[in-house]
Amino acid sequence: MSAAQPARQDRLLVTLIENQLAALVVTDSANVRYLTGYVGSNGIALIGVNGRFLLTDSRYAVSATEQVQGAEVVIGTRDLLGDVASLVADVSGGGPIGVEAENLTLARHGRLVELLGGLATEPTRGLVEDLREIKDADEVAAMREAAAVIDRTLARALDAGIVGRSERAVAFSLLEAMLDEGAEEPSFPTIVASGPRGARPHHIPGPDLIEPGTLVVIDMGAVVDGYCSDMTRTVATGPLPARLEEIYAVCLAAQEAAMGAARAGMGASELDGVARAVIAEAGYGEHFGHGLGHGVGLAIHERPGVRPEGGETLRAGMAITIEPGIYLEGEGGVRIEDLLVLGEDGYECLSSSSKALRIVE
Amino acid sequence: MSAAQPARQDRLLVTLIENQLAALVVTDSANVRYLTGYVGSNGIALIGVNGRFLLTDSRYAVSATEQVQGAEVVIGTRDLLGDVASLVADVSGGGPIGVEAENLTLARHGRLVELLGGLATEPTRGLVEDLREIKDADEVAAMREAAAVIDRTLARALDAGIVGRSERAVAFSLLEAMLDEGAEEPSFPTIVASGPRGARPHHIPGPDLIEPGTLVVIDMGAVVDGYCSDMTRTVATGPLPARLEEIYAVCLAAQEAAMGAARAGMGASELDGVARAVIAEAGYGEHFGHGLGHGVGLAIHERPGVRPEGGETLRAGMAITIEPGIYLEGEGGVRIEDLLVLGEDGYECLSSSSKALRIVE
Repeated sequence: MSAAQPARQDRLLVTLIENQLAALVVTDSANVRYLTGYVGSNGIALIGVNGRFLLTDSRYAVSATEQVQGAEVVIGTRDLLGDVASLVADVSGGGPIGVEAENLTLARHGRLVELLGGLATEPTRGLVEDLREIKDADEVAAMREAAAVIDRTLARALDAGIVGRSERAVAFSLLEAMLDEGAEEPSFPTIVASGPRGARPHHIPGPDLIEPGTLVVIDMGAVVDGYCSDMTRTVATGPLPARLEEIYAVCLAAQEAAMGAARAGMGASELDGVARAVIAEAGYGEHFGHGLGHGVGLAIHERPGVRPEGGETLRAGMAITIEPGIYLEGEGGVRIEDLLVLGEDGYECLSSSSKALRIVE
Repeated sequence: MSAAQPARQDRLLVTLIENQLAALVVTDSANVRYLTGYVGSNGIALIGVNGRFLLTDSRYAVSATEQVQGAEVVIGTRDLLGDVASLVADVSGGGPIGVEAENLTLARHGRLVELLGGLATEPTRGLVEDLREIKDADEVAAMREAAAVIDRTLARALDAGIVGRSERAVAFSLLEAMLDEGAEEPSFPTIVASGPRGARPHHIPGPDLIEPGTLVVIDMGAVVDGYCSDMTRTVATGPLPARLEEIYAVCLAAQEAAMGAARAGMGASELDGVARAVIAEAGYGEHFGHGLGHGVGLAIHERPGVRPEGGETLRAGMAITIEPGIYLEGEGGVRIEDLLVLGEDGYECLSSSSKALRIVE
């Protein structure tokens, strides 16, 4: 990987100055990884006007030195707060010190304040998360590969057949194939929801056998270089009842309408509305009970939300999912999801599995 | 399940009064489950001198009513803090309100304080966790079953053979058998560490094939009714090099010495010392780099720690692991672990798989 981290630190410093801060104590582990490259269970980044540090303990001395870019690695004790306290006055030049209020617990903050003696801390929200919304080339490359892993995984799993196997067994096969194809781990627990269980968007695959003649929702993602992918395909296990055939067609039309409309500069809620209108016009509006999509990156769910009430404007560099669904209680469900990265003009769709209704037996 | 929750709430109330508090806002999800029985992703318990409530949102209205014992279920909004704020003055009778400092973030606390207007909050640490150290009959019953699931899982997996398969494939077979035997989920990612990889206590099973004539560390646990089990066995894949045979014998002697010594009333560090002395006398002291054990319950790692520096005294009702290990870099490792519940006299060992060195091919 090229050194994208120093540029991210530069952008954070601009944000800090705009917010009248002289340093930020970064404790959220995804934010620490984003800013420094550090991968491990115990790291704090300290980014300020007078210096950039990554603090970790001796277990990570070797790996941190290999991973971290643009920041000095400091090996401290297991509890890094004492090490933060002894560095932060220099890093901030005595100016205001921000902490991540959505990550730091009261107990950890209390201890930090105690260790800092007279220095005050300012609670901040989402400063690094705002930067993470816009992906750089390194991030897109990792997500592209994470999405390709899932395309290959799905192809392998469908070739092996699914009817008569349990949802859990199919989920296991998918996981095994995913790891074999190069995933570090799944980006969330794989969903295999067949028959009436397909009506539950977050169904946990169980011992139920996959029956012929119904829909099966398969929602999964891989992690590559720390970055997540996310894709859903719904397949048929034979000729379908008319209603299930209809909801597949409506969901696909809604998904493709949103894919046709997606572009930087439009409101996230406006994009949600494009798909929602197609489903509502077909009479299934009340059966699409979740948002159209979400941002993806180091976390499987991150900013921006793509929902009816989402106020954000889409921008070039954002990676979002487009995943309308229709859920009929007691009958079945469908969801179709792609992952895309918006550009100045158009976008790159990272998911390449076919969306035409496929029969898998 | 009988209604153990009201008695737990009573004990918490005594603790609160001892700490000059009139109510506690319980946000840690394991603590919420322990006190009320609520199982879900969005619940806050409010326990005070004038009332006991479990707050959740409409997604959990039906399940919460079925699960919760000894507390009134209140259905609030997705963000429950507003609902907490509107109830807490009544529940505390205007007295001091505790919050869980090790769980609440600065951001959530800031919002709660804002919503509470004039009411102050007191940060607390470990009040419910202290109660959770001593297991009641319901908890022991769940852990007994979670341990039995693992005994059955191991027997099945070993009968199927392991040599020539990848560590990952064996870990998958264990997971599948565990779920089939009645686990809700694994209590942590199963460890299968063979050959030189056995020298890493937290090895993640990978594509490496399990070779004949070495040691394989298998560390796993199941969740039943929310409670965890934890057991490690190390098996041989054929006749062993002398050093590996020796470390197995030393580790087993250390484990059995600690099992012979364990009793309520002794110091946790004293128990750690019993096993550590056996390993040190055999010349492997520097190759046992972790603590002897830890508490287990709703969490896989909870109080008390059983470590050289652990200051706690063991008490009847505590559930702890005893798991010495010897790790030889580049050669292999061994760890042998049982889970036991201390009584007034002696203990019940929940793990029943044999510890004699077994050859599995």
